[in-house]
Amino acid sequence: MTTTSHAVIDPERRSFVNVPAGSHFPIQNLPYGIFKPTAESAPRVGVAIGEHVLDLALIDDAGLLDGTGAEGRRLFSADVLNPFIAAGGPIWRAVRARVADLLDEGTSRLRDDALLRARALPPVGDVRLQLPVDVGDYTDFYSSREHATNVGTMFRGPENALMPNWLHLPVGYHGRASSIVLDGTPIKRPNGQTRPDDALPPVFGPSRLLDFELELGFFTGTANVLGEPIPVDSALDHVFGLVLVNDWSARDIQKWEYVPLGPFTAKNFATSISPWVVPLDALRPFFRPGPEQRDPRPLPYLVGSGASDAASGLDIRLEVHLSSAAMRAQDPDAAMRISATNAQNLYWSMAQQLAHHTITGCNVRAGDLLASGTISGPQAAERGSLLEIAWRGTEPLTLPTGERRTFLEDGDELTLVGWCEGEGYRVGFGEVRGRILPADPIG
Amino acid sequence: MTTTSHAVIDPERRSFVNVPAGSHFPIQNLPYGIFKPTAESAPRVGVAIGEHVLDLALIDDAGLLDGTGAEGRRLFSADVLNPFIAAGGPIWRAVRARVADLLDEGTSRLRDDALLRARALPPVGDVRLQLPVDVGDYTDFYSSREHATNVGTMFRGPENALMPNWLHLPVGYHGRASSIVLDGTPIKRPNGQTRPDDALPPVFGPSRLLDFELELGFFTGTANVLGEPIPVDSALDHVFGLVLVNDWSARDIQKWEYVPLGPFTAKNFATSISPWVVPLDALRPFFRPGPEQRDPRPLPYLVGSGASDAASGLDIRLEVHLSSAAMRAQDPDAAMRISATNAQNLYWSMAQQLAHHTITGCNVRAGDLLASGTISGPQAAERGSLLEIAWRGTEPLTLPTGERRTFLEDGDELTLVGWCEGEGYRVGFGEVRGRILPADPIG
Repeated sequence: MTTTSHAVIDPERRSFVNVPAGSHFPIQNLPYGIFKPTAESAPRVGVAIGEHVLDLALIDDAGLLDGTGAEGRRLFSADVLNPFIAAGGPIWRAVRARVADLLDEGTSRLRDDALLRARALPPVGDVRLQLPVDVGDYTDFYSSREHATNVGTMFRGPENALMPNWLHLPVGYHGRASSIVLDGTPIKRPNGQTRPDDALPPVFGPSRLLDFELELGFFTGTANVLGEPIPVDSALDHVFGLVLVNDWSARDIQKWEYVPLGPFTAKNFATSISPWVVPLDALRPFFRPGPEQRDPRPLPYLVGSGASDAASGLDIRLEVHLSSAAMRAQDPDAAMRISATNAQNLYWSMAQQLAHHTITGCNVRAGDLLASGTISGPQAAERGSLLEIAWRGTEPLTLPTGERRTFLEDGDELTLVGWCEGEGYRVGFGEVRGRILPADPIG
Repeated sequence: MTTTSHAVIDPERRSFVNVPAGSHFPIQNLPYGIFKPTAESAPRVGVAIGEHVLDLALIDDAGLLDGTGAEGRRLFSADVLNPFIAAGGPIWRAVRARVADLLDEGTSRLRDDALLRARALPPVGDVRLQLPVDVGDYTDFYSSREHATNVGTMFRGPENALMPNWLHLPVGYHGRASSIVLDGTPIKRPNGQTRPDDALPPVFGPSRLLDFELELGFFTGTANVLGEPIPVDSALDHVFGLVLVNDWSARDIQKWEYVPLGPFTAKNFATSISPWVVPLDALRPFFRPGPEQRDPRPLPYLVGSGASDAASGLDIRLEVHLSSAAMRAQDPDAAMRISATNAQNLYWSMAQQLAHHTITGCNVRAGDLLASGTISGPQAAERGSLLEIAWRGTEPLTLPTGERRTFLEDGDELTLVGWCEGEGYRVGFGEVRGRILPADPIG
């Protein structure tokens, strides 16, 4: 049995668990989630491997997860990842290394114990996944230059597309944590207040401009003390892992309410996340330089030593797929890819977001979620929202059925997918899916 | 021993515990907090009475708090009020009635047991108060018409003072829950990014325009299901109790960062709350009609049956006191009252805030905090922030020492006080205090 203290798992390693080609969950990933083996059983921490889930509570009880000591039950027989996240980097790395060893094709302990294997590695299709993290605070940034430029161009023209502050700081705002929901949760079209005609009073009714936003989010692990900012150079030490985020947005509600304090009811009705939290350690091989930040060069607290510039971008491929009810009536698996972009396009890095978030002294806690904002790219096919794809309704999208879309219709299902492409393997996020239900009738 | 099922405690009732004249905590109040009897003991729920704290964990263990059954230990031997808050209205009312009975001058059980009384009713000066609630989500509104008008007049002139949406909906935004701190917590002046001169690049350094905001906040008790808005007519059923809130604000940071997504690092460094949560039931005698909302009349979801109009305002007197280091050097108790206003001035009611917050389907949970926004009144002496009091720096405040203030200086201490004036008694919030520490040196 080999043991490694390194958090990055060698691309050559293979698991005895079958990992189909193209799977997002090879031994190089090992993302964490919360699941119940059956409807009746207690939730616990699991790790995705191929099309199975390794039950960490069970293998810890069986004595296979040494290194966590008496803490194991508290960390793994839990209904959220927060205790494990709060345990900190040395524990994350020890568990990750241990799980990789246990799942390695060369390790007999689990591989050759058919009874234990059957109990400890249920097929993912047989278990019930839950929201993985109790999110303390949720923050949403606005870190894609192409997205901010697209939106600014639509509303203010190309000359004034970017606000004066945009290139100087990662603009962000506090979002709503209570309404973060798991992949698959249906999204009811919200009723709300809008003002479609500026010459008339506002009206109440279903949002007519319902949209998605393609985003990534990261969970903070190690907390900082209130009043003590996190330096940009060590910011990534505070990052536990990442998920896909769909920041559902009612554009008509947003337009009327957002001045001067920002989006509120236009976004607080639901934010969907993917079920598996991909450890930052699994993503390290995919760090790339992000966009250059020379004109202007940000203030020193956002640059630090500059040592992290080479790791400021993440090469994560991102796609958005849409299916309408009519499309699914013809083929239950029908879906149209409506966007394909890359997280490397993000202008502001996670380290910069975290350094800026805490610069006035704000504390983050284990399990806070910081999302990127809509990720768009320089090409038209890389737009991360329908607002941009259909260019404020002026360039409707045509679906294979001939239906046209400017915004989301009832019955539409959106799926975000994300993965890193390694040499012969993928480290992926799976997907986050949500289907639009009709609004409640107005009573 | 009398038992009442009514949540409002008769103004004629008195406790055997001494309640000095002018005390905020007579038997008509009975606010909840979290305290530790000694530095070593476990935290528990307490109720303030006069200058003492009733230890609910202890009297429940002693069998005096019937009505909560086996749940008592979970509700009262807790380090936050959340389990009790989540228990819901019938439990709140049962406990409130029972505590009032136990403390009543006519009830012998505790009154005549000197040993138990000494243990169960320590002087508040001997115990350690803690943050009473684990705040899930924190929302801050902007519900004072006078405050919004003052700020709008300063920045856009009197003709455009109120934004077009302001009279149609309670403007609000999501704040930061992690940095909510208890009364007395020192507030370090934040470093951050500002742009004092539009012709020059932004700069980094200590905020030079540090301000307070006089607010009230309410904790939600009963949760709603995601996707199911809370109707305005039943919104108050979801309110557990209220606290004083000081929403510390760095105006120079706010001005540069807030477009288009709202305040972020300008406010996320600290929000102070008072330690005692005053039950809504204690405040019912002080409901009054709020400002008329006829021009325009809000949309029906913000009005409901209109039955709650008579209870849309709360007659809570609010004061702000400031002391500088120089003032305290002359007299340790020196302080200057710099504002005196009333919560009844608020244009949007708690019920409207909650109905609007949830109108698109957002869920609230037990322990979420919704704050009013700065409470100013029609008179100059009723302004709830230094931005307004010193009118954007143009009308400096002169302290008794001859010092002048446009914004807060290091060493300044702010104290917010709030109470309802009954006939011969007060139902009050105590105070929330915070002293400004110098910014960290820039490394």
